Amino acid sequence: MERVYLDNASATPVRKEALEAMLPYFSEHYENPSTVYDMGSKIKSVIDEQREKVAGLIGARPGEIIFTSSGAEANNLAIKGVAFARQKKGNHIIISSIEHHSVLNSARFFERMDFEVTFLPVDKYGLIDPESLSQAIRPETILVSIMHANNEIGTIEPIAALSAICKENGVLFHTDAVASVGNIPVDVNESGVDLLSLSGVSIGAPKGVGALYFRDNLRLMPVLHGGIQENGRRAGTENVPGIVGLGKAAELAGQELSVKQTHLKHLRDTLVAGIIERIPQVIYTGHPEKRIPGHASFCIEALEGEALIFMLTSVGIYANTGSACASKALKTSPVLIAIGTPPDLAQGSIVFTLEKSNQAKDVEYVLEKLPLAVEKLRQMSPIWRRKATA
Amino acid sequence: MERVYLDNASATPVRKEALEAMLPYFSEHYENPSTVYDMGSKIKSVIDEQREKVAGLIGARPGEIIFTSSGAEANNLAIKGVAFARQKKGNHIIISSIEHHSVLNSARFFERMDFEVTFLPVDKYGLIDPESLSQAIRPETILVSIMHANNEIGTIEPIAALSAICKENGVLFHTDAVASVGNIPVDVNESGVDLLSLSGVSIGAPKGVGALYFRDNLRLMPVLHGGIQENGRRAGTENVPGIVGLGKAAELAGQELSVKQTHLKHLRDTLVAGIIERIPQVIYTGHPEKRIPGHASFCIEALEGEALIFMLTSVGIYANTGSACASKALKTSPVLIAIGTPPDLAQGSIVFTLEKSNQAKDVEYVLEKLPLAVEKLRQMSPIWRRKATA
Repeated sequence: MERVYLDNASATPVRKEALEAMLPYFSEHYENPSTVYDMGSKIKSVIDEQREKVAGLIGARPGEIIFTSSGAEANNLAIKGVAFARQKKGNHIIISSIEHHSVLNSARFFERMDFEVTFLPVDKYGLIDPESLSQAIRPETILVSIMHANNEIGTIEPIAALSAICKENGVLFHTDAVASVGNIPVDVNESGVDLLSLSGVSIGAPKGVGALYFRDNLRLMPVLHGGIQENGRRAGTENVPGIVGLGKAAELAGQELSVKQTHLKHLRDTLVAGIIERIPQVIYTGHPEKRIPGHASFCIEALEGEALIFMLTSVGIYANTGSACASKALKTSPVLIAIGTPPDLAQGSIVFTLEKSNQAKDVEYVLEKLPLAVEKLRQMSPIWRRKATA
Repeated sequence: MERVYLDNASATPVRKEALEAMLPYFSEHYENPSTVYDMGSKIKSVIDEQREKVAGLIGARPGEIIFTSSGAEANNLAIKGVAFARQKKGNHIIISSIEHHSVLNSARFFERMDFEVTFLPVDKYGLIDPESLSQAIRPETILVSIMHANNEIGTIEPIAALSAICKENGVLFHTDAVASVGNIPVDVNESGVDLLSLSGVSIGAPKGVGALYFRDNLRLMPVLHGGIQENGRRAGTENVPGIVGLGKAAELAGQELSVKQTHLKHLRDTLVAGIIERIPQVIYTGHPEKRIPGHASFCIEALEGEALIFMLTSVGIYANTGSACASKALKTSPVLIAIGTPPDLAQGSIVFTLEKSNQAKDVEYVLEKLPLAVEKLRQMSPIWRRKATA
């Protein structure tokens, strides 16, 4: 059977080059980078080389990169690191209403410590209006966190405009760039962000590694307290193989970005046009242009996203409904609700995320199989039958 | 040149069997375990199988294991998870004065939140007197954290007696078992602990993975907030290959424990006797009997541990001075100070930690080279020359 994997936002296979680069660091160069002897120091240098590569991908300096165990940990470190370090300056955090759970729940965690969290609304495309941010900032605001691109609807937020507003107001700006890094150009200086999270899982590095960019010497309270690793900002023996994998994947992501963007945009546009043409009553969610290239998301009327996923799996197509971290926990996506999708329609969410290895034939295969699956599910749907006979 | 690695407490090479078990999960079975489709669920089952193996090694139930990114993260989760969850019950934490930095600094973190931390003293062997714990517990005590075995001096604490006192007083007991798991039998029921941290790095699993045992349905505030992974107790896409490596290493550790203990104890005893016989003015630190089998630690008068490490490296011997996480940060070990070592003597700390693969010839080699290195360094030491001529 054909196998078409279009759930790359949930996880990508580790790239061959990344795995090859990692392999010597499991059983051969396994020493602890914190030891004083030469082999420890050599491994510390290897880590710093990866720091350069990851920094290079986003226009940062190596000393501004902290390696973490995931994008989620990077988000936790950004929010908690700033909030704990600045809690005497103020107790107000602003996030968007479509943030990843790791940002949302990190911010919410501070509500129990007399913080207030403001959730900025988004328009029907999922876009934040910079004007609404200006209005939400108060004297006690210490941090704004708005994602670069949304993983469920693909929309790219105007982070340069948003960070400029924060700068004017002396407020730190963090962006969760897990869904954008490796898919569109990300430059911490052009965008002016103070903190930025990225993840290995989404760029062909292994699971278990991510990174936080933090500008210059920004003070951060660690989330993981302990030893002197990562300059005292993140304790725990460094995941050396994971970090090497992330470095390699970041290097490749930078080299391939422009070709990849064009390739994915073309595939995605074909997929979107084909779905809209072949399936009645389908909504293309997120912004039509301001979105990451390989991302196509829809709400399909009168069916359950989960049922559709299962049906597609039976013909070898792997897609998602909502975000991976939430997909088992939530029946209705808060992101889709935030962009004004009626709850019934939001049930029929499906998200395709493409990668470099995907080809035109993958899209053709989906365009052949998806309408059949939708048709089949709709035939079983009382809502759809009622509509059809109305 | 001979290569004798005796710094296994800092890091162990990943075991061949563990790496082999991990390999398919990088690029082949790479799907996100949180996705709804079958391949995600299969990977979730694989994670649960590893949970069984890790639980099996310490006599726990699989549902009582949370996978983390390191032993340090497990320690953070134990201390912070309990302290945040129980802060309305009380604001007093007791730890020993020889805890790992990740326990020490996690506890200290709460001092800024109106908690008080009591540091229990240890005797000259590094042992906690259970009576001192009884006396230190107050009505507002919510958590006691005392390590199972100390990584710098090898001493094994009487955790069953300590946890029994906690139980009597309705206080939770956590133990950092990073240095003991895989080296001596560890059973959460026999020892009666409520929480226990372990690490992959010290048992031949890869860096980047650890685990926290927590009894039954103990309430824990996550340290990493976000999605639904690990039953909502630890967010972030699961490090599947790392977890598989930990599972395999745990399984093997259990099978080999009794043979390994005998083997290491024999090697260690030969090493210790040889060093004491061949080198004048050397103190064997830690408890002579109540210590982990492969652990030999000394303070050698009139020299610098770091200089000795470098000199040993030049003949292919790798050892440590103090603990890896602190070795670059600290000139004098707080552990050695806590057991009453004079600061001058504490400078001459050296720690050998053996593993299964070490052989009698490794010990012979150290016994041949170490006295020469010590002699050479002492010849350069004004303190030693003054002594010699006195």
